[in-house]
Order: sequence, then C-alpha cells, then structure tokens
Amino acid sequence: MNYKKMYQEDVKVLTSIVGEDFIEAFEDVNEMYSMDKLGTVKNMPEAVLHVENKFQIQQIMKYAYQENIPVTVRGAGTSLVGGSVAVMGGIMLDMSRMNKIKELDQINLTLTVEPGVKLFEIYQAVEPEGLFYAPDPGEKNASIGGNISTNAGGMRAIKYGTTREWVRALEVVTPKGELLKFGSKVVKNSTGYGLKDLIIGSEGTLAIIVEATLKLIPKPRFTKSMLVCFDNREKAINAAPRLIKDYVLPTAVEYFEKQALDYNEAFLGTSVDGGNYQAYLLLSYDNNDDVALDKDIANVSKLVLENYGASEVMVVDPTSKRSNIWNVRGGFLTAINASTSFMDECDVVLPRARISEFLAYVREVSSELSIRIPYFGHIGDGNLHIYLCKDDIPNEKWDRLVEEGFDKLYKKAFEFGGLVSGEHGIGIAKRAYMKQLLGEEQLELMRGIKSVFDPKNILNPMKVIS
Amino acid sequence: MNYKKMYQEDVKVLTSIVGEDFIEAFEDVNEMYSMDKLGTVKNMPEAVLHVENKFQIQQIMKYAYQENIPVTVRGAGTSLVGGSVAVMGGIMLDMSRMNKIKELDQINLTLTVEPGVKLFEIYQAVEPEGLFYAPDPGEKNASIGGNISTNAGGMRAIKYGTTREWVRALEVVTPKGELLKFGSKVVKNSTGYGLKDLIIGSEGTLAIIVEATLKLIPKPRFTKSMLVCFDNREKAINAAPRLIKDYVLPTAVEYFEKQALDYNEAFLGTSVDGGNYQAYLLLSYDNNDDVALDKDIANVSKLVLENYGASEVMVVDPTSKRSNIWNVRGGFLTAINASTSFMDECDVVLPRARISEFLAYVREVSSELSIRIPYFGHIGDGNLHIYLCKDDIPNEKWDRLVEEGFDKLYKKAFEFGGLVSGEHGIGIAKRAYMKQLLGEEQLELMRGIKSVFDPKNILNPMKVIS
Repeated sequence: MNYKKMYQEDVKVLTSIVGEDFIEAFEDVNEMYSMDKLGTVKNMPEAVLHVENKFQIQQIMKYAYQENIPVTVRGAGTSLVGGSVAVMGGIMLDMSRMNKIKELDQINLTLTVEPGVKLFEIYQAVEPEGLFYAPDPGEKNASIGGNISTNAGGMRAIKYGTTREWVRALEVVTPKGELLKFGSKVVKNSTGYGLKDLIIGSEGTLAIIVEATLKLIPKPRFTKSMLVCFDNREKAINAAPRLIKDYVLPTAVEYFEKQALDYNEAFLGTSVDGGNYQAYLLLSYDNNDDVALDKDIANVSKLVLENYGASEVMVVDPTSKRSNIWNVRGGFLTAINASTSFMDECDVVLPRARISEFLAYVREVSSELSIRIPYFGHIGDGNLHIYLCKDDIPNEKWDRLVEEGFDKLYKKAFEFGGLVSGEHGIGIAKRAYMKQLLGEEQLELMRGIKSVFDPKNILNPMKVIS
Repeated sequence: MNYKKMYQEDVKVLTSIVGEDFIEAFEDVNEMYSMDKLGTVKNMPEAVLHVENKFQIQQIMKYAYQENIPVTVRGAGTSLVGGSVAVMGGIMLDMSRMNKIKELDQINLTLTVEPGVKLFEIYQAVEPEGLFYAPDPGEKNASIGGNISTNAGGMRAIKYGTTREWVRALEVVTPKGELLKFGSKVVKNSTGYGLKDLIIGSEGTLAIIVEATLKLIPKPRFTKSMLVCFDNREKAINAAPRLIKDYVLPTAVEYFEKQALDYNEAFLGTSVDGGNYQAYLLLSYDNNDDVALDKDIANVSKLVLENYGASEVMVVDPTSKRSNIWNVRGGFLTAINASTSFMDECDVVLPRARISEFLAYVREVSSELSIRIPYFGHIGDGNLHIYLCKDDIPNEKWDRLVEEGFDKLYKKAFEFGGLVSGEHGIGIAKRAYMKQLLGEEQLELMRGIKSVFDPKNILNPMKVIS
C-alpha cells in the first residue's frame, strides 16, 4: 500500500474543515493517540482531527480519498486489540466531540446518538425514563461507536444479546464521503442486504458511523444477583449450562476463581465476603415482579446447593456499595493489569460445553510456558477473557512466549468449535488467528467486501483483514 | 445476462449427481415450481433437482458455475414476492428432502437443522424438551431456509426479535461450489465481518444455506393472551406503543379491524366472541410465574380500560380450540385470499408512531382508486400486511391500479420513515420501491457485494437487486 505522506498543505486544508482549535498535526500530536488501552501496538497518526459533525467527516473523507491518505477512527480508545491505532499514519478522527444525544423517542422506543456518546451516558439518558439499553460491556467509558464497531457483548448478552441486536439504524460516511443511512426506527427489516449488520462488527474498516439509533425496552423493574461459591472449578463450570437450561434465563452468568478476587484485594483493595472458595458463579436475574423474582432466587439457590454441588449461596445486597460483588467483578481487568508490567489478552469464545476442558488447558499452557495466565469470563455465553502476564520475563523471551501461548490457546479453542473473538474484535493483533480459523475463502470474501466499500483501502487499513 | 440454455446433456450430468428419481426436466417439470404462494410472477425452471445433501449442492453449483446456468433455491414455496421463482429458467433446487433435524444440543442450547425443515417441525422438536425457538411467522409450513433468507419476523418479534437473532451459525455453498461455515454455536462473535448476518435476509442471492444452527432458550412456562376491543381505530392504534412502554414487554401486539373477522367468518367459517367492535388489539404476555402473569394480565386490563379507551377485554381461553382468537388471526391471509379472484400485497414496516396516519391513508387510496384493500398487522413492531384485491376489476385496469396503489402507499410509507419490507423480502416484485427508498449508492454497494459472492450472477438472478 502506497499512501501519501502528509504535508503542511494537507494540514491547511483539514484545518479549514475542522477549525484551527481542533487539529493537532505532526510533532504536536499527543502521544495518547498512538495507542489503545492495552498498548501492544503503537504508531503516531500524522494529524488528529477533533471532528464535530458528519458534514466535516464527509469533507475530510472526500479529501483523504482524493489524496490517498489513510484515516483511522478513534472513539474512547478503550480497544484492547489495536483496532483504533493508526498503524499506517495519516489522519485520525477523534470522535469524542460528537457526543450528543439527539433524540429519545418514547413512542418508537429508540435513542438516537452520536458515536462519541459513552456507554454510561446512554444508561443515564434512558434509565430515569423507565427505559433500558441492555448491552453491558465491562468498560462503561467506551464509546457507543466503538461498541457497535466491535459488536460488543458484555455481561447481559446471555439474556439480551449483543450490541448488534440493539442497533436499529446507522448513519455512516463511506470512504468516498457519501452519507448513507442503513435501517430505520422500525423493529423489522427485510429490505435488501443487511448493510447495517455488515457495518456492525467491522471495526471501522468499511464506513464511519456518524449516528446510531438504538433500540430500547421498558426497564425490568427488579434485579437481583447471587454469588454461588464452589469448592471445585468443574462443579461451577458444569453448573452454568444446567442453570441456564433447567430454570429461567439469567441476565448474567459470570465465572471467576479465587485468584481473581485475590488480585482485586491486592491491587485495588476491594474484597468480598466469602472470598475463600475455589470458584464462583455470579448470577443475575431480572423480573417485573418482586415476588416472582424472590421465588426465582430461592429456587436457583436450592438447585445449586442440592443438585449442582455449590457450597454456599450469597444473595447480593444491592444497597451495600462497598461489598458489591459487581464492583469487584468490574475491577478484574484493572487489577490484573496492575499486577503485571505488561500483558496481552485473548478474548476467545467457546461453546459452553467445552469451557471446563479449555480452562484446564489454559492452566496447562501456563505451567508449561511458565507464564502467569489469569482469566475470568462471561461463562453464560462462553466468552473468556484470558491474560498473558509478562511480569519479569525479558522482552525477547516474552515475544516468543506470548506468540507460542496464543498459538496453543487458539489452536485448542478452534478444535473445540470456538472463535477468535467474542467481543473485543480482531484489530491488528488477532488477524493471523482469524485467518487460521476461517480459511482463505472467507478472507477472500471479506477482502472483496472491503474493496466494495473502500476501493483505495484508506479506512483503518491493516485491520481485521489485510 | 446471457445464460446457457439447458440441454439433455446438462440433464444427464445433473442426473448423475442427484439420481434419476430426483430430477424433473423440461416438459416434465411440475407447474407448481413455476410460482410461489401468491403467484404474481411465473416462470418455469428447465430442471428441478430434489437435492438430498450439501455435497450434491456443491457439485451442482460447480457445474452450473462452469456452464453459466442460473440456479434458484426453493424451500416450501411460501414466498409472497416471487423470491423463489426461477425467472431466468435454469436449475431449481428443491430443498424439501433436506429436512433432517441434525442435533439438539442441550448444553449449548442450539438446534442444528437442514434448510428444508419446516417451522412447525422446529417447535415440535424443541418444545417437548422445555426449549423455545421464538420466531413465530404466520406461515408455519415455511421452511427454515426461507425464514432465514428473508429474516422472517412474525408475531413475537416485539419481544424476541426476528429470525436473525436466532441464528448462531450457517453453513452455505457459494455460487462457485465452496462449502463455508459462518458463526458457530457460541453466543457472541466479533471475529471478522458479519458474513452470517449478510446471508440472513439476502433471499438466496449470495449463497445457498445448507445447514443452520439455531439459538434456543428455556421455554417461558406460562403464556396468556387477551383480546382488547375498541370502538374506534385510533384508540386501539395509539394504545399499542403506550402499552409497550408503560408496562411489561408483550410477546405479541397484533392489530386488526372488524373487517378481518368478517372475512374469516364468511370464507373460513371461524368466528370469535365479541366480534362487533371496530378495532382490536390481540396481546400476549409470557412469564415463568403464573401468579405474576395473572397480575400482568389484570394490570394491563385495568390500564387499557381506564386509560386507553378500550371498551372490553377478553382473556383468551387457551383450552378452547374452536374460539381461539389465535386460530382466527392465523386465518386472515387465507380468508382475504379466498375473498378475491387475485391479490397483491404490501408488507411495509413503519415506525409505531405513524401507523394510525398511514392506515388512514390506505383507506383513502382504497376509496380513491376503488380497490378493496383489507389489512392487518403486527402493530407492536410496525409491520403491516396490506392486500390489494382484484375482485372483478378487468386485467389491464388492475395492472394499472395495482401499480398506482403501490406507488402511493410506498411513497407515503417512506415519508413516514418506513421501509419496503418488514419480513417478506424484496424478491422480484418490490425491487423498484427498494431503489426509490435506498437510492443508487446503496444499491451500488449491494451490487458490489453480490459480485463478490457471485461474479457470474448465476444464483437467483434478478432478485433483490438487478
């Protein structure tokens, strides 16, 4: 790929589009724009444009297309796979000023937002109105544009599906600068190919999301969580699918082990009562009727204690901030990150039936390669988050070990019918594994689709496919 | 497009693939294979192959691709828009022998089926196991392959989403004869572009679905329906979105008027108590707790009677077969079809807020053009089914009137933010309206995608785009 290197004259044109207060160029670009949250891949864009609206983006894309300058979109920068790193330089569009909530439609039950709106701002906008946007990824500071671009899942996917199911319409700017709208406020759509669904999960490589219309539902009135403690991993892991099948659908089924609680205590100072079991399931249920919800909680407690080998059940007191296990759960990534000098992650997703075997294999790899590999997961939907920690391993050895570790883990996951990524995406870091899994024919289809949208390959080049 | 006309030598090759008992060619092709359920478009395929498995389909596609013969896939033939009519002749693949249920996975909660399995067979396979496949299109004899190809919606879409949300994985044969698998049994997937979601709703134009893995959930334990009667259309229509927002999410919100009941009585001999109101909402709620469900039903009854202007509420007795309003609802299409010599339909979908205005406009067009236009709809998700009835209008006048009628209805629907099709698809009949709505740029993207999958345009040509 032969892109144009940027010069002052390009900056001049771009400044005329966004205004001089909203551009950083060359040596003035803040270093934070060279990387994502994990920082495994770094490269500086030549210019960062803090865009304000879709019309600016159209103009920028027309110029970039004409001049053959690569463009990378960055939301809140919380990606873990390098998806928003400008690996070929060029222009970075920072979407954080496009953070307006444009309309809450109480009749059609939709929320229309700009892509820079953060996840927590969506909850704040709809929940006081008795409405509910269900996707619940761990990172509440992520932008909705990023969530859509990776089809983020989160804790409640087991009951409510992933981000895909919550997007009614997208307005996008194509690499050529066209403004297009896919979908509408309606519930159903069988009008031509699913272009909206193709943009969702395409990690900013096909078109730039400039507006999203999200689906809402009435907020479930009551929610209760319970921490189920097991003295043995297999019991916990095997209980999860049986719980899902034999009783009502939980809103969340999280799995973690004592280790994860220990990291939280050591690095974040948060702890939880009953932190001395080997393995845990954190379950949530919601209901519009509090009596029925209490019945569910009682029945599930009975089931796990009598039939699934649980040692103890603690119903979570939602009023106690300090001991709230959900806060502890929310801190796992931060705590593991704090426990090591550097780490890389694997966001593999597996059929529920194979989790136990797979995690046994993770521990085997950990001991074989002598790398610390903590993990936790959305076990209800088979999505594990696994962290290879560098600790005091020397750089070159680490590079070799991390590659060997990933090779082994993905190979085993594919054997078990798993996929590369459950929710974090492919970005730049996981391309080789996707190719291994999907094969050349599927990649060829993806490359063809990429060319249809982006014939000059200027939008987020080198990502997902290459 | 210049396709090869088929000769005896082609039939010989194809016979060697499927066996002589499973091919009909030329004058031996049964006329039923020339049309779909509505019969508005007719053309005979040159050969019909009753395929048995995916490997046959791979061989057939390799031959068709090499020889440049068009191929059209037919499931149960229940399309209403000509989607499965072989308008360019060539080969028709009849999928009805590919009707095996391959696996019910009780741990991952999936059902793996061949594409010719019918919707009612899916319910029969999973419900006795306490499991639930939620999509509920009116036509239970439709094949699952067809349901996936049109992203069929049905009555329960308001709570459970459309077919798209219930497909975990698809195995397909491409026009070139490659066998590819998109997705897996897993709940989440952010592994590359959403090829599975692109196939869903593409009406058999991109690849041939040869196996589908469907999502299941535990079956909700209790369901109750209520018929809410109104003496005024607007009251009924306006109640629908308020009901959805103000209380719990219904599983279905169907709308119809006295007229629809009258057709059923006249043409099918089925009737319902309380059939003398102007407009009706048929509501369903499900719950895992019967006490909570009764509370919901009581609260909704109170709401509609006291606040939304309903005249009467009848809780449906599910044990009475004869009077079951759901059977009556299921007969609307058949009854309207029986009421006329010929009809054409409009499956428009609108934002919920505009339904009342739109239906007033439908009545206006009916009186302006002097065509009878009965309708009913899934008002909970804004999807209306509108039927232009020929009755005793002479042929030429009918052709002109139906075009004028559709022009007016779609134009108004687009003004209101509606889309061409909620669930029946575009097929051949609705292409012009899709073009009007989406514009040339979007069609160009769709054409590009079509070329990526099907460079010779042999698979279901002339459909969706052209």
